[in-house]
Amino acid sequence: MSGSTFGTLFRVTTWGESHGPGVGVVIDGCPAGIPLSEQDIQQFLDRRKPGQSKYTTKRNESDSVEILSGVFEGTTTGTPISLLVRNQDQRSRDYGNIATSYRPGHADYCFDQKYGFRDYRGGGRSSGRETIGRVAAGAIASKLLGELGIVLTTYAKSIGPVTVDEADYDFTEITNNSFYLPNKDAAKKAAEYVSTLIEQMDSCGGLIECRVDHLPAGLGEPVFDKLDALLAQAIMSIGAVKGVEIGDGFQSASSTGSTNNDPFCMQQGQVMKTSNHSGGTLGGMSDGSQLILRAAIKPTPSISQMQHTVTNSGEEIELSIHGRHDPIIVPRAVVVVEAMTALTLADLLLRNAVSRMNQIKQLYTEDKNV
Amino acid sequence: MSGSTFGTLFRVTTWGESHGPGVGVVIDGCPAGIPLSEQDIQQFLDRRKPGQSKYTTKRNESDSVEILSGVFEGTTTGTPISLLVRNQDQRSRDYGNIATSYRPGHADYCFDQKYGFRDYRGGGRSSGRETIGRVAAGAIASKLLGELGIVLTTYAKSIGPVTVDEADYDFTEITNNSFYLPNKDAAKKAAEYVSTLIEQMDSCGGLIECRVDHLPAGLGEPVFDKLDALLAQAIMSIGAVKGVEIGDGFQSASSTGSTNNDPFCMQQGQVMKTSNHSGGTLGGMSDGSQLILRAAIKPTPSISQMQHTVTNSGEEIELSIHGRHDPIIVPRAVVVVEAMTALTLADLLLRNAVSRMNQIKQLYTEDKNV
Amino acid sequence: MSGSTFGTLFRVTTWGESHGPGVGVVIDGCPAGIPLSEQDIQQFLDRRKPGQSKYTTKRNESDSVEILSGVFEGTTTGTPISLLVRNQDQRSRDYGNIATSYRPGHADYCFDQKYGFRDYRGGGRSSGRETIGRVAAGAIASKLLGELGIVLTTYAKSIGPVTVDEADYDFTEITNNSFYLPNKDAAKKAAEYVSTLIEQMDSCGGLIECRVDHLPAGLGEPVFDKLDALLAQAIMSIGAVKGVEIGDGFQSASSTGSTNNDPFCMQQGQVMKTSNHSGGTLGGMSDGSQLILRAAIKPTPSISQMQHTVTNSGEEIELSIHGRHDPIIVPRAVVVVEAMTALTLADLLLRNAVSRMNQIKQLYTEDKNV
Amino acid sequence: MSGSTFGTLFRVTTWGESHGPGVGVVIDGCPAGIPLSEQDIQQFLDRRKPGQSKYTTKRNESDSVEILSGVFEGTTTGTPISLLVRNQDQRSRDYGNIATSYRPGHADYCFDQKYGFRDYRGGGRSSGRETIGRVAAGAIASKLLGELGIVLTTYAKSIGPVTVDEADYDFTEITNNSFYLPNKDAAKKAAEYVSTLIEQMDSCGGLIECRVDHLPAGLGEPVFDKLDALLAQAIMSIGAVKGVEIGDGFQSASSTGSTNNDPFCMQQGQVMKTSNHSGGTLGGMSDGSQLILRAAIKPTPSISQMQHTVTNSGEEIELSIHGRHDPIIVPRAVVVVEAMTALTLADLLLRNAVSRMNQIKQLYTEDKNV
Repeated sequence: MSGSTFGTLFRVTTWGESHGPGVGVVIDGCPAGIPLSEQDIQQFLDRRKPGQSKYTTKRNESDSVEILSGVFEGTTTGTPISLLVRNQDQRSRDYGNIATSYRPGHADYCFDQKYGFRDYRGGGRSSGRETIGRVAAGAIASKLLGELGIVLTTYAKSIGPVTVDEADYDFTEITNNSFYLPNKDAAKKAAEYVSTLIEQMDSCGGLIECRVDHLPAGLGEPVFDKLDALLAQAIMSIGAVKGVEIGDGFQSASSTGSTNNDPFCMQQGQVMKTSNHSGGTLGGMSDGSQLILRAAIKPTPSISQMQHTVTNSGEEIELSIHGRHDPIIVPRAVVVVEAMTALTLADLLLRNAVSRMNQIKQLYTEDKNV
Repeated sequence: MSGSTFGTLFRVTTWGESHGPGVGVVIDGCPAGIPLSEQDIQQFLDRRKPGQSKYTTKRNESDSVEILSGVFEGTTTGTPISLLVRNQDQRSRDYGNIATSYRPGHADYCFDQKYGFRDYRGGGRSSGRETIGRVAAGAIASKLLGELGIVLTTYAKSIGPVTVDEADYDFTEITNNSFYLPNKDAAKKAAEYVSTLIEQMDSCGGLIECRVDHLPAGLGEPVFDKLDALLAQAIMSIGAVKGVEIGDGFQSASSTGSTNNDPFCMQQGQVMKTSNHSGGTLGGMSDGSQLILRAAIKPTPSISQMQHTVTNSGEEIELSIHGRHDPIIVPRAVVVVEAMTALTLADLLLRNAVSRMNQIKQLYTEDKNV
Repeated sequence: MSGSTFGTLFRVTTWGESHGPGVGVVIDGCPAGIPLSEQDIQQFLDRRKPGQSKYTTKRNESDSVEILSGVFEGTTTGTPISLLVRNQDQRSRDYGNIATSYRPGHADYCFDQKYGFRDYRGGGRSSGRETIGRVAAGAIASKLLGELGIVLTTYAKSIGPVTVDEADYDFTEITNNSFYLPNKDAAKKAAEYVSTLIEQMDSCGGLIECRVDHLPAGLGEPVFDKLDALLAQAIMSIGAVKGVEIGDGFQSASSTGSTNNDPFCMQQGQVMKTSNHSGGTLGGMSDGSQLILRAAIKPTPSISQMQHTVTNSGEEIELSIHGRHDPIIVPRAVVVVEAMTALTLADLLLRNAVSRMNQIKQLYTEDKNV
Repeated sequence: MSGSTFGTLFRVTTWGESHGPGVGVVIDGCPAGIPLSEQDIQQFLDRRKPGQSKYTTKRNESDSVEILSGVFEGTTTGTPISLLVRNQDQRSRDYGNIATSYRPGHADYCFDQKYGFRDYRGGGRSSGRETIGRVAAGAIASKLLGELGIVLTTYAKSIGPVTVDEADYDFTEITNNSFYLPNKDAAKKAAEYVSTLIEQMDSCGGLIECRVDHLPAGLGEPVFDKLDALLAQAIMSIGAVKGVEIGDGFQSASSTGSTNNDPFCMQQGQVMKTSNHSGGTLGGMSDGSQLILRAAIKPTPSISQMQHTVTNSGEEIELSIHGRHDPIIVPRAVVVVEAMTALTLADLLLRNAVSRMNQIKQLYTEDKNV
């Protein structure tokens, strides 16, 4: 247990079930002095809000966030920030038939095995609504990153079989289509593909990519809390993720050292790399290049097609899952991947701040209120 | 900092540099009553020992482990187990020219950026020798898993471009070749491929796969310490790993729900699945099926070919890395992947043990010495 | 930062300021299957509610708790339990003059030094209202302890100079007086003493004692997370506590080994002790005797007498603190000490549950639903 | 389990038993760039070495420390520092009769209850030798504190009934007597008292006091990781400690607010206090005054007098403990109290360093190598 907390210094704890009174998060360890409003957080939440296109669930939630603590006169105080989002649309009749049967691809059976029973309403804790807490906390982490000039860009690299090559990226397109794809044509093909799936009562997955610019070098704590290691945990902890890679990732396994190594060079007095196969990490620390990570999202397990499964009393049955499900969660998961990346970076930025004695000395001997 | 500890209850802390007096690990939280000898640990260490074939470094280290604490009369006592392996072959002259230049693909530059300087002898803390502590601790975790009948099988799925399809797996072959490949023909092809690379003063990577049988369902702590999330951290924290996936992993991103979902069924009174696309996890918990994970290993960055890089004073230079380097680390990393998997599972088995009040009640009301 | 979480497995995170929207707590790691209602928690909160006698603040708060997650059909689910208490009586005009001056005995100056500014309304995070989260979580820990037959008794041992000797304890009196003193005469004397202080616009402190019966032996995790060590942290973390002792505590410093040692004996086939100078712990683990701990509470720092202090711009001033302050916080702190003790014990009970391999083996090989 | 680690950022893990091959500690999170030699550590260890006077055990141990990692060319590197002290004098025959009986005042019974058996040689893990790891780590923490000008002074305030009032303190005397008492006459009286106890085959305890000067204000992480709370855990985790207090401690319980509050004033442009009843902490954070803490040490439980006890098979017996035991451990515990205080402060100094966004911003935007 105790698995609902992430981070060492910038530490978030999420709570809440799909059909309970609400969901939320406590952020402990956010430095004092960051401007923060509910609107800052709401913007992030709105990116994962349901019902924004015909490709996402029609569940109707306004998902309005309330800041309960940790902010005074528009600024973080250094004390825990508690955020609450009330659940509104809780039509539990949609989920009633799920109480006794194990949905394929879902956590139902595992919850029963772990705890002896489960809150079966809408998936309970394993619902996608749990990510609201992550996204809300991620909004605050992003504010912290923003103070340091760090910028995250996150988008769908592929929707099912529709993939955009790096050469065809057009980041201005990301917010112009329902899939957050960085390419207009791909978005059109994805729309056709997903429309067909909806007719077939089927679903699909995709790839999400996140790039981070202006990250200082040296972030990440060898040997277990490496930048890539904690990112891997962070991203893999998102419900539907089945794989994570950094830079060339799985492709590097079939490459050679002479090709895969990124030569260092000097540019304008700075140490740089002439290529970026590493995706911005070396030895588990940021290397000053652009950080690049990719997450593989499995197809939404909730489909209306008839599926074979068993009940919790051991009876084999056929099950058709009705209700308001996303045929693809990738578009709504884009901001979740960004949030988890931001949370990981915020934590490692704080941890890295105490790496050198001369910096600590400077901090405690200088005037603190510069 | 403080990144050298892994685990919540079964907690390991590794220490040591390539060319310091030694490397080691402290395991805190190993339950009392597990039979343990130095030989149990040595067996694991021998699997990663250098100099075992022409495809691995010729550095000559016996890597003999000494148990310094936590074991009494051949049994773990519940107190911290400290393990020490002395470094022997420390020919630091091999590495002398590395002191001031940043090797491409290595952590040198990042260490300097993080700490202001570095122990440049043999990569210091980022050396592969750091994994000795992991493997030694993993041997103990494996003993714990063995007490519960859990079995791990780990091997190279591919060496550079040479890949073995699941249909061609022959696990009896794994220990018959220098690459830990589960297929005789593939091993022959890999030998040819790597021999060519050696001639070209180049290196390659590969894929490592680990399968775990007889895992109880319900392991993993939602939502951040999910089984797959912690495995992802554990595996990605290994030096050369650039990607991690579970089950169908990246392939599931282009699949559909109707294909990717694993139907539940009853077999001999047990809930089972008729397929295993999920690779043994649902909702971040073990689902009672075989756990399957895969790691992408990048090519060894140390190559003797001339490479372009810079010095720590900002001068661009050409660098050729001599010394005793593995042209491929995959064979020696197999046991490291197994060790990290074992450590993750041991920790989650302990954490899961306190999931239900009725079990805790039973423990404290029954005679403890049954 | 990140100091608002307590516990390793039974982990609580409190949040909230005196005059923000509310205060609350998230409990992560509570085992599944414990019956829990809002009424269970409300009972504990009512014991610390203000306005219950003329010896406590007249601030009017109903302090009604809402369970936001983690409970399904009256039972804990194993997922995080989020509790919310809205602040109601927030007459911030009472505290307006505090914004710029440092109240003696308060945290104002330290907050400014740490964070650069502070939420000055009612003490912000350092307000006694922060303990609401602790008490609410403690109520749940107490339910867990109750399942194992463990019983806590907490009371004021002294109010200012009025002390009750152990020989004069009458535990039936505890709830018969406003001070939670276990003696009728002492309660009368205390009432007189505190009444005089109120007239003098002064305040006082006292001692709180907690006794725990039916604790199994062996709780506590050497060497840093010993039972007494974690209790010391837990109790000392309560705002006004300046000292903690176990058993004979400070008196044992002037005793001798032959007197202070508790001889073991057999009673009804059980190992027992013929005395209990140790207060129930040996080597940092529970020894099967009654656990006894004592906390020293300092006098309430908020007094209406004129005091000398400085402003945050460095001006020396005279300050009289008006508003609704407790002349003594001991009565309301009794339940806080009990809550912190319960939280510590619940956590250590879970941690201790995985001490022995044979027990873990039994758990995973037996039918889990016994 | 997992109780052998202390600290969040400056994190120490001790290991080792009295009669195993050795004892030691791993320090993870020490900042890079602190000059460190074995001699720095040895000086601290020598202060707790046995056999230095007739008032301490005659066990003969040189307790020489070896630095195994984390230091390069005389400077900490930021990677884990592993320290090893080999056990030498392990005359296990001294302890043979302890294998089956429970020594009064010792942890024997608790270990058996917790783990099912124990390493009975010399107390195993509960031996005072475990503190070697703490003291060695404390030496490094003290180096860190020294870089910031922070000074610790630790001494015995009382030996059994012999107490030194604050008015009679003469800190130049501390190292002039075997008891570390800050007063010559008291040292003489203590010598007489302990000599009598030795004749009576008895033992005694005492009080240890630690004062810390030049601590910056604002250290400590509300609400659970307050400075005083973590100090309480740290100090109470030392084997024989039964009570901890800060400043006026238990005396403040019978004081009044008007007396106990420390008025703030301005001195040379600094905020100061005109008294220090608080002992240097307010609201769980350092207040810029001298930090004062006191630990109550119980009498050594190992005495040669005949004592009543039971065996692990439930037989009542009489037991006389022979061997080489300290009649009083206070003198050797002085450096342990100092070490635990230093460890707590070092950790909180690092944690406090990331409290404010403007400081973090400055760190990442300035030249790091100033």
